[in-house]
Amino acid sequence: MTFATVQDLETPSVLIDLDLMEANIAEMQSKCDALGIAFRPHIKTHKIPAIARRQLDAGATGIACQKVSEAEVFADAGFDDIQIPYNIVGARKTRRLAELAKRAKVTVTVDSQPVIDGIAAAAQAVGATIYMMVELVSLGQRTGTTPEAALAHAQRILAAENLSFAGLMIYPSDAAIRPRLQQTLALLEAAGIPVEQVSGGGSGAISDMRLLPELTEMRVGTNVFWDWNSVSAGYAGFDKCAMRVRASVVSANEPGRVILDSGSKSIQSETIEGQFGYIAEYPAARIYKVNEEHGYVDFSACAATPAVGDSLHIIPVHTCVVTNLHNQLFGVRGDRIEVVWDVAARGLVW
Amino acid sequence: MTFATVQDLETPSVLIDLDLMEANIAEMQSKCDALGIAFRPHIKTHKIPAIARRQLDAGATGIACQKVSEAEVFADAGFDDIQIPYNIVGARKTRRLAELAKRAKVTVTVDSQPVIDGIAAAAQAVGATIYMMVELVSLGQRTGTTPEAALAHAQRILAAENLSFAGLMIYPSDAAIRPRLQQTLALLEAAGIPVEQVSGGGSGAISDMRLLPELTEMRVGTNVFWDWNSVSAGYAGFDKCAMRVRASVVSANEPGRVILDSGSKSIQSETIEGQFGYIAEYPAARIYKVNEEHGYVDFSACAATPAVGDSLHIIPVHTCVVTNLHNQLFGVRGDRIEVVWDVAARGLVW
Repeated sequence: MTFATVQDLETPSVLIDLDLMEANIAEMQSKCDALGIAFRPHIKTHKIPAIARRQLDAGATGIACQKVSEAEVFADAGFDDIQIPYNIVGARKTRRLAELAKRAKVTVTVDSQPVIDGIAAAAQAVGATIYMMVELVSLGQRTGTTPEAALAHAQRILAAENLSFAGLMIYPSDAAIRPRLQQTLALLEAAGIPVEQVSGGGSGAISDMRLLPELTEMRVGTNVFWDWNSVSAGYAGFDKCAMRVRASVVSANEPGRVILDSGSKSIQSETIEGQFGYIAEYPAARIYKVNEEHGYVDFSACAATPAVGDSLHIIPVHTCVVTNLHNQLFGVRGDRIEVVWDVAARGLVW
Repeated sequence: MTFATVQDLETPSVLIDLDLMEANIAEMQSKCDALGIAFRPHIKTHKIPAIARRQLDAGATGIACQKVSEAEVFADAGFDDIQIPYNIVGARKTRRLAELAKRAKVTVTVDSQPVIDGIAAAAQAVGATIYMMVELVSLGQRTGTTPEAALAHAQRILAAENLSFAGLMIYPSDAAIRPRLQQTLALLEAAGIPVEQVSGGGSGAISDMRLLPELTEMRVGTNVFWDWNSVSAGYAGFDKCAMRVRASVVSANEPGRVILDSGSKSIQSETIEGQFGYIAEYPAARIYKVNEEHGYVDFSACAATPAVGDSLHIIPVHTCVVTNLHNQLFGVRGDRIEVVWDVAARGLVW
């Protein structure tokens, strides 16, 4: 299919404003450059090798993926420095990881001994070297471990034949983590273990980068497109949000209320203050409910209500989960479609 | 890839208990048979032609899809009676619909004049006949129209060259709709318009079928697998829930709390009382948060907490949106994998 302008597209379709995306890529790289920190884009937000290539061309040092299957897609596309900041567990998955490590530099993160041992066994079985960082638990209270356990894990990694200790990882790398990070670095130094890398991450942690001089790199995904979550948290304005879901009105039988053809299958189910997306043309409209293929919108606070067949554009609550729902993203300048990307790493759960 | 047992699978993987699915299919068909109502399974729940074929083999009359693109997949798989209970809007989509109607019997629903006219024009352009039902607005307050407008729409459909009036559609078809339905039928009868079909739908409306003797068919999707939503609403027990997401523990560094490898990318973001899924082995556990690749589980109310590498099984909040996130579903009996289905109509938003 060829599309000349956005008016040719069926809806729902995901548009990426290329001017905004390019500015977002340049801005993040320049923030990292100014601090002497490497930037490592997390591809979860776009899942598209051609966009990651633009990020590397702008100066990024490598990529981060969240799944082995995603890393495989990007390795196939020629990326050779891939971080997977995740505890990779299970015989099949660690085997695939080890195979991948024979054709790209692969760095994973771990927070427990069983995870280290599982990956070490797989690496040894195929004769690969896997780089391994230890994750420090952050205020996010997700994965990660304590300074004392981090030292023990580093020693275990150093003792394993096919693993290479690659430093420390934090997510999110808010400034509040600094005392714990410094304590960990001191423990490692006292044990004579050099720490080559301290990898931070998270959109919200961008503003804290300068307060953590120990960081050697930042992993961020969302900045490439931004979204309503980012705006709500104060990370960016709507004027930087590059992703918009083009939707159509399919029913308008109630005054001040319409139904869109975009529901949880195209804009997902996450909310901000009970709303499922921000309609660019109607800031006072509220998407108050979604079914899979229907979005319910209250226009009662708007001067006008659109009619059946009209199109409008939704800035999603969370851009990464929207990418994962679509087979293509459409790169646009104004109304002109400049590029159609297949979402190559879409929906890869393994 | 060949898999002998669920232990061979990577996680997250979606298991379908075949015994339960078969019982669910038989039960729904027999409920409809007992009332003399046709059953038309909505394929949105499984998106898999082979499962729809089992439903037809059990006695179903045809299928319902929600998108033209889904209908195309099922037409390619040999299904020749397809209903799309949706207002189909836009030149490209109506053109594809009309092309589809040349190779299968296609019935759509409408709730406004612009939608009727758009489809009529497309049907005429390619010389296809499209069957068209008028949707009555229900208590769900989504799409649909009034009795008076339904009459006007029926007349407009009858006057169009390439459209065939196929009756009335209701979603959800709760018993409370009956006065409005009867009023509409009386208006149509007074105008000399025969109503061949009254199509009801919705899991919750199954219990009301006997209270709406005007119904000629029921469209339901979720009953094939059921889910936590269904249990919560009292439509089924957990013992009928055929879908389970097999997940692994990837981190367990906090007492009474673990992190799973299943987050919004595999179990989605919908919740029941703030929980993102029901863990079959640990009824007292609470999945209290998800990121894309992480599920946060509180096991503090459980007698034991699983360890890194352990597997468990999640009954999802909403089965349809989970299917849409996965490339394969695995049909199992006990631990043995009997069939691997590709989710052929996955993620089709057009």
